[in-house]
Amino acid sequence: MNGAALRRIAVLIEYDGTAYRGSQYQDNGPSIQSELEAAITKLTGDTPRAAFAGRTDSGVHALGQVAAFDSSVRLRPDEFVRGLNHFLPADIAILGAAEVGVTFDPRRRAQMRVYRYRIDTSPVRSALERDRTWHVGRAVDVAAMQRTAARLLGKHDFAAFAGPYEGSTVRTLQRCEVTQDGREVTIEMEALAFLPHQVRRMVGPMTEVGLGRQSEDDVAALLGGVASSAGPAAPACGLYLVRIEYDGLSLAPAEGNGQER
Amino acid sequence: MNGAALRRIAVLIEYDGTAYRGSQYQDNGPSIQSELEAAITKLTGDTPRAAFAGRTDSGVHALGQVAAFDSSVRLRPDEFVRGLNHFLPADIAILGAAEVGVTFDPRRRAQMRVYRYRIDTSPVRSALERDRTWHVGRAVDVAAMQRTAARLLGKHDFAAFAGPYEGSTVRTLQRCEVTQDGREVTIEMEALAFLPHQVRRMVGPMTEVGLGRQSEDDVAALLGGVASSAGPAAPACGLYLVRIEYDGLSLAPAEGNGQER
Repeated sequence: MNGAALRRIAVLIEYDGTAYRGSQYQDNGPSIQSELEAAITKLTGDTPRAAFAGRTDSGVHALGQVAAFDSSVRLRPDEFVRGLNHFLPADIAILGAAEVGVTFDPRRRAQMRVYRYRIDTSPVRSALERDRTWHVGRAVDVAAMQRTAARLLGKHDFAAFAGPYEGSTVRTLQRCEVTQDGREVTIEMEALAFLPHQVRRMVGPMTEVGLGRQSEDDVAALLGGVASSAGPAAPACGLYLVRIEYDGLSLAPAEGNGQER
Repeated sequence: MNGAALRRIAVLIEYDGTAYRGSQYQDNGPSIQSELEAAITKLTGDTPRAAFAGRTDSGVHALGQVAAFDSSVRLRPDEFVRGLNHFLPADIAILGAAEVGVTFDPRRRAQMRVYRYRIDTSPVRSALERDRTWHVGRAVDVAAMQRTAARLLGKHDFAAFAGPYEGSTVRTLQRCEVTQDGREVTIEMEALAFLPHQVRRMVGPMTEVGLGRQSEDDVAALLGGVASSAGPAAPACGLYLVRIEYDGLSLAPAEGNGQER
């Protein structure tokens, strides 16, 4: 590879996280990163590292993860989309691609991250939604969950909703919406950045409120509390990384070949 | 088992057909029937045959398949639901159960069958919807497909939309609706009975019309034609057995323990 000829490519990725150990390298099994890098090598002959915008755990899904890598090969963005999809396994798909500046860092450049958590309140489990929702199996008090969500909104110390963490645990939760559609309850959260496991560690106690096992005050009182005090995280299978927003970069799947504007 | 003590139980079944050779016994791999019968044996000690309302092929899914079996064990319907779900694999789920008359035959007693076919017109394939939609990858002319559907409605000889078949190939298609939601096009069909593969063999040419490769007249002219002349079937993965209706029997998942009225 000739350094002068390198271009940086950003890709929009959908995946079913069920079969993977997470988005980034893990010693104990395949990751989205290892599969993506293998596909890049098959397509281009390059052996770059792919940098991911958000870290997702084993079993967590993505509708719009973003990764970037360098390439010496002069393919158009839509050729990267088609070529990588040819080499990737069926549970990982590239939805769009764009050439970006050579200093583009998908994690640091992100302006907003959107996550969705799906809760199945049906009395019996679903076959088709296995590994894609958290089956709590009972009706929940959605209004109580909505009131709890409203109290978690804004700038707070979210240490209680993460494990031990080096650095500031203050984050600003810009949106936290609880909605219901039939038997399914969905929680969407939006922030510039989240602590590790924060979404699942917030969904856990919010659902306890919905089930009547914790009060709204209990959960609100966790803000500013010590690491891990919020209790168990909701299972990975219900969580989706929906979207990551960047100023001036569109990787929208509609086009299939986004461009940095 | 004591014959006099036998009761007949009907169950409502959801499944992801991807891993199975079809609803009924096959020599070359597991079927929904073999898994259901194994779960019944584990739960009750009985070794009955389960009779299915509709035959689905390898890879076809069900939101509401119906099966019936005899049991010597005095469990309530909701206990059958919970107990069978405990022993069934995660990609098969019992949604409801009811005690029915000892002569109940789920295939012959069916009053209406509803199938859904999902077509993904997005230019790029989806990771989460793999094995659950047919990815045609191009926009389709939905209005042309709707006009074709209207011409297939009613009582016709559907031999062209099935392989060689013993007996009458006249069926009455009561509903055939093509709808669009974003990139997804859905075809729903409803009839008292369908020929083997009929839904997929109708979806194939209807989609060819949507893609501009066949005319509405071409497809309408197949009615009354010879076996198999409609051409290739649409892939199994996009097809769902949605619902089977019976006079006086409710297996609705809402209750989790339906009853014959």
